[in-house]
Amino acid sequence: MIVTTDARAAREWTMRLGASRRIALVPTMGALHEGHLSLVRRAHELADEVVVSIFVNPTQFAPTEDLARYPKPIEDDLAALRHEGVAMVFNPAVDTIYPSGFSTFIDPPKVALPLDGIIRPGHFRGVCTVVMKLFQIIPASVAVFGQKDYQQSLVVAAMVQDLNVPILLVVAETVREADGLAMSSRNRYLSVDERARAICLSRALNAARASFDSGERNVAMIESAMMRELRVGKSDGVDQVDYAVVRDHETLEPLETIRDSAVALVAARIGATRLIDNVILVRDR
Amino acid sequence: MIVTTDARAAREWTMRLGASRRIALVPTMGALHEGHLSLVRRAHELADEVVVSIFVNPTQFAPTEDLARYPKPIEDDLAALRHEGVAMVFNPAVDTIYPSGFSTFIDPPKVALPLDGIIRPGHFRGVCTVVMKLFQIIPASVAVFGQKDYQQSLVVAAMVQDLNVPILLVVAETVREADGLAMSSRNRYLSVDERARAICLSRALNAARASFDSGERNVAMIESAMMRELRVGKSDGVDQVDYAVVRDHETLEPLETIRDSAVALVAARIGATRLIDNVILVRDR
Repeated sequence: MIVTTDARAAREWTMRLGASRRIALVPTMGALHEGHLSLVRRAHELADEVVVSIFVNPTQFAPTEDLARYPKPIEDDLAALRHEGVAMVFNPAVDTIYPSGFSTFIDPPKVALPLDGIIRPGHFRGVCTVVMKLFQIIPASVAVFGQKDYQQSLVVAAMVQDLNVPILLVVAETVREADGLAMSSRNRYLSVDERARAICLSRALNAARASFDSGERNVAMIESAMMRELRVGKSDGVDQVDYAVVRDHETLEPLETIRDSAVALVAARIGATRLIDNVILVRDR
Repeated sequence: MIVTTDARAAREWTMRLGASRRIALVPTMGALHEGHLSLVRRAHELADEVVVSIFVNPTQFAPTEDLARYPKPIEDDLAALRHEGVAMVFNPAVDTIYPSGFSTFIDPPKVALPLDGIIRPGHFRGVCTVVMKLFQIIPASVAVFGQKDYQQSLVVAAMVQDLNVPILLVVAETVREADGLAMSSRNRYLSVDERARAICLSRALNAARASFDSGERNVAMIESAMMRELRVGKSDGVDQVDYAVVRDHETLEPLETIRDSAVALVAARIGATRLIDNVILVRDR
């Protein structure tokens, strides 16, 4: 497995191999868990060789957020990727991606405006900018993103379409712990008590799905069911809800009534940790 | 010569030919003149095959500007490009480049802030967005821009560097009429009287160069010499000066004194027409 911090080396390797082999890119911020590894496995199904980028992107963190404490277990990450048969890891330094004088950003598509676009100002601007850079440095045929970051996957898909980036995006299903908690690098932050309370997010989404599956189409009713499961401020609940909503699954615009499908999304804080999760609501599943 | 309005066809052609041959892109807004054709000839020197895009990009025009009257002599343009041995012309419709729902833009680098960044708000945002799209649609090895649009060439160069776009930018010298007027599609707007007055721009730049060559290094002095030649409001002068300045030739930041080199830039209005021009001031020419 090639491990490089150098953008030129990463591109040259990709160009050389890409002439004869289909390459898939899995962009990550490291601190890899089973969710990431499932993206790598999906990438192997879609392409001949898999490239993983590991970069904790400062421009997608607000000043108040957890950039400084974001975990960076690089040796564990490399061992896991080696085990998965990854061909190259691109692991650049911050000043490789943002050298002195850097000042061009992607102004993200409108699906970036609601939800995390409001709660995390500048987040998707940072995400789009680094993803666009990675797509230029590593000209892969396919890129695999996780559904857990649902809005991110819509934002990147719209950017790719709007800017004509020649890459196929694939969104892979969320991997969960046995009790339903979505895998996340941020789960490492949780104390034992917080970890127990974190189950509220997937419970809320299960409630949304159960309500939808039983025939409920009124969004306010489904959102109420989600809020009940989040148990805000209770000893077994989350500490704060950023949102617990049902939205159009393509535009993330608010709905009053679900026609055929929608997405239920939740973002909540437990102690100092912010977790997100979502489930797509589709008829006849 | 292939002429296509289809982005997918343009990309597939470029990908196929680009596997074995070096391709140069010359992005234009059509209404081609000798200046554009000199870019095509430069492109032929740099690559095996030349692609020209013709697209009058609405997002780089402010609502008050000349989008509606911008000339579109497409048959003349195609004949000229055929004569120059161009391999492909990409001539998309507006809704091919900006389909319904389009909403991702490039937020340009900081060199886009002064001069035309102030006079033409949103201009470089539109330029960067369309150029980035063209670079994705037509993955050429080289792109050739004209020095007449000096700030544009710096903006695109910074964008390419910041976003890691794998393309080499080449800036080709400005082509001039016999009397010194820089070639521009907008020269077509000028009446006989206006055409005569348009010579003030290159006169101002010649004055800047003469002053610099005679040893003057004080920017205020050189700018005064430029202003004198522009003869604002006089019957043989321009009607309005947007700027007539000497700036750092890389950052476009203001200077008090020139050390080794600088750029003199002028933008002026004659009737309803806005013209720009520039000259690089370098020691020992």
